[in-house]
This record gives sequence, structure tokens and C-alpha cells, in this order.
Amino acid sequence: MNSVRRRKDSLLALREQLAAFAAARDWDQFHNPKNLAMALAGEAGELVEHFQWLTFEEAANLPATTRDEVALECADVLLFLLRLADKLDIDLAAAAEKKLALNAKKYPVAKSRGRATKYNKL
Amino acid sequence: MNSVRRRKDSLLALREQLAAFAAARDWDQFHNPKNLAMALAGEAGELVEHFQWLTFEEAANLPATTRDEVALECADVLLFLLRLADKLDIDLAAAAEKKLALNAKKYPVAKSRGRATKYNKL
Amino acid sequence: MNSVRRRKDSLLALREQLAAFAAARDWDQFHNPKNLAMALAGEAGELVEHFQWLTFEEAANLPATTRDEVALECADVLLFLLRLADKLDIDLAAAAEKKLALNAKKYPVAKSRGRATKYNKL
Amino acid sequence: MNSVRRRKDSLLALREQLAAFAAARDWDQFHNPKNLAMALAGEAGELVEHFQWLTFEEAANLPATTRDEVALECADVLLFLLRLADKLDIDLAAAAEKKLALNAKKYPVAKSRGRATKYNKL
Repeated sequence: MNSVRRRKDSLLALREQLAAFAAARDWDQFHNPKNLAMALAGEAGELVEHFQWLTFEEAANLPATTRDEVALECADVLLFLLRLADKLDIDLAAAAEKKLALNAKKYPVAKSRGRATKYNKL
Repeated sequence: MNSVRRRKDSLLALREQLAAFAAARDWDQFHNPKNLAMALAGEAGELVEHFQWLTFEEAANLPATTRDEVALECADVLLFLLRLADKLDIDLAAAAEKKLALNAKKYPVAKSRGRATKYNKL
Repeated sequence: MNSVRRRKDSLLALREQLAAFAAARDWDQFHNPKNLAMALAGEAGELVEHFQWLTFEEAANLPATTRDEVALECADVLLFLLRLADKLDIDLAAAAEKKLALNAKKYPVAKSRGRATKYNKL
Repeated sequence: MNSVRRRKDSLLALREQLAAFAAARDWDQFHNPKNLAMALAGEAGELVEHFQWLTFEEAANLPATTRDEVALECADVLLFLLRLADKLDIDLAAAAEKKLALNAKKYPVAKSRGRATKYNKL
């Protein structure tokens, strides 16, 4: 007998919770992919604002309160991203795996080691 | 005995793959949170570009090739988001759960049903 | 004798005011182009947030208070853009004229009339 | 007699050229403020991408070709910003002057000298 409690995959669990959240509020009417892409861009803007005046040293050593705020901004990005993917029938985890595989080809270790150069200029 | 093969949580698996990807290329030197927040904002911009001239109807019914491109842009956002969270020691799934709980309080069903009004103007 | 009071070009006037504003506050230390590009992206995110849940009809007919808020967000984008251009020794008006000329070639009237297709797919 | 040729204000001149550009291509149908705000966010994303892996030193000393590319990205931001302002009947120069005056109040020299702290935390 399996005594280990199996947890649902976090992306899947969040996607379902978001769908229920929207349904309960009758928000699907607003959740057109165009709108969700905008909302995601807005949240990405808020995230970047936290770092805009920081040195690299400061950015890598956020005070706890800032870090908690940043965590919630990251959450906002993820939530809108998941909602967008859901509305477009995109399997986000599968897309990420696919992109990682593409990146591995675009950025072979030998060529890209220690360099931030874009693949088309490698 | 449990015969079910347990899969690692997708966010966790991706985070680990990304860390290995960066380590193999000696890219941690570039992956300061400031830079990663910028990269995420850049990808959010690319995502929004796909939708900028579309009607709602078109946005909700993307041709297959566009949808595949959008899926990879979504992947880019997720990958930089995970990398950023990793560098800041943020548990992205936990942050998302916390934000969902906060949103449930900010947007009570009774007040927000059918309305896209921001919580501070409800 | 010329009795007409000649006004300084608005972009030039704003650029100079911004430089004085920063100098008075000893802010040039923060106004690295990297930081200014981030600040601009943050403001663009705030701008987009105003429109994210609106229909086209609503976006084209903003209430006066929203329009005033949007005007100030537009101002923020312009101010950071001018500051960035200044720091990079870019003549923003000249760059815009150059880009308009490039766009006229990329989007010939005959090919692009009534179509929002990107030039590389025309 | 005034022999000096008076040039039209650059923002005004660009706004008019953009309106003519769009009219010639029958693009006003696409230039809803919602779409233009998205286009601006997309361009801001492209701008930020140029700087995302750079050190401050590198960002302040761009190679000439990168600087030219960045100039055209800045131009894109300005062009969409002007188009958006035009569609919303916003006087961009006036809004920028107004915002500068507000900023002068929000960031008094004595309090904000040498500090990048946001006004609400000063």
C-alpha cells in the first residue's frame, strides 16, 4: 500500500484554482488572451520596478520585506501566465520543456560558455 | 507496493534543469536578479506583441502556428521567472498560493462578481 | 525685428529640465542607461494596466479622470525616454524621423493598406 | 524682418506625420488606444532587452552599432507614445511639464538628494 500522499502538480493545481476563481466571479468575460497578455506585461513592469535603481549587489541581497513583495509580484506574473496558457490550451510545463530543449541547441555549451551573446550572434 | 511512477513537480523539475543549464554554461555570473527581471520584462513584451493588433475574436482563436509561437513565448516568461525565483530563494508555487489567498480576500465574490474593477475601487 | 517669441523645442526643453532636475538631486549616479531602460519598461507596464480590462469602445472613450491619469503615465514614459536618450547621446527627434523614413520603406502603402501584418510577413 | 526659419516643434511635427502615415495606410482602424498601449509596451520590452545582460559600465558605453539600434528602439517607443497621446487627445509636452512639476513636489531636493527612494517612502 502506498502511504505517500501524492500531491497534484503545482502548475496543474494552480491552473484549476484560477479557473475556479474566475468562474466564481464571472470573470471569464474579461479573460480574453489579449487582456491576459496585457495583465502579464503590467505585472512584469511592476516586478522590474523593484530592481530599477538597485546595484547588482543590492538586487542579490534584498531586505526581507522587499523580497516578500517581489515574491508576490512573481506570483502575479505566474498567475496571469497560467490563466493565459489555460485560455489558449497551452500546456505550460510542456512548452517550457520544449523551449529548454530548443535553447540547448541554440546555445551549445562549447560556444556559449561564459558568454551572454544572443544565439544569432554566437 | 506503489506501482505508480511519481513524477517530480513540474516547477521543481524546471527549476533544477535551468540551474544545471546555467551552470554548464557558466551563466550564473549573468543571472543577477536585476538582469533576470529585465529578461522577463523583455519576454513579456514579446508576448504582448503577438496580440497587439488582434481583435478579441482573433486573440481567442489563434492560428496553430501563432499559438505555437505564443506557447514558446509563454515558456520564455516561465523560464526566466523560475530562474529569478531560484536566485532569490523564492518558492514560486508557495508564493502563488499565498497570492491567490490574498486575492480571494481582496476580491470577495459578492463585490467583484462580473466586474473588472480594481480592489481599491470596489 | 522679430516680435514673435520663439519657444524652445519641447523635447529639447524637457531634456534640459530633466538634466537639471537630476543634477539638483545628485541622481546622475542612478541614471545609468540600464536603470533608465528598466524605469521606462516599468512605466510602460503601468500604462498598459490602465487598458487591460477595457473594451475597444471603453479604451477610446476614457472617463476624464482616467484620461488624466493616463496622461501622467504617458508623461512618465516620455521623461524616462528623454533621460535615457540624453545619457546615450541620442537625438530622439532625429531618431524618430529616421525610424519614420524606415517604416515608410518597410510598409509601402500599396502593400500595407488596411493590414496590420508585420513587414516581414507582408 | 525675421530671417530665422522657425521650425515646427518636434513633437507636434512627429504627431502630424504619424497621423498622415496611418491615414495613408488606413491604419486608424488598428490604432485603438488599447492596441497602441500594447505596442508601446512591446517596444519598451525590446529596448530593455538590449541592456539585460550588460554591466553598468557596458550600458554606459555602448558600441556604435548597438547605440544605433537602441536609438531606433527609443524612436519606436516615442512614435507609439505620440500616436497614443494623439488618439486620446493628450498634449504630451504639457503632460510632461505637469508631471515634472508634480515630481518636484514629490521629491524635494532636501529630502531626495542622493537617494533613489520612492517618494512614498522618503
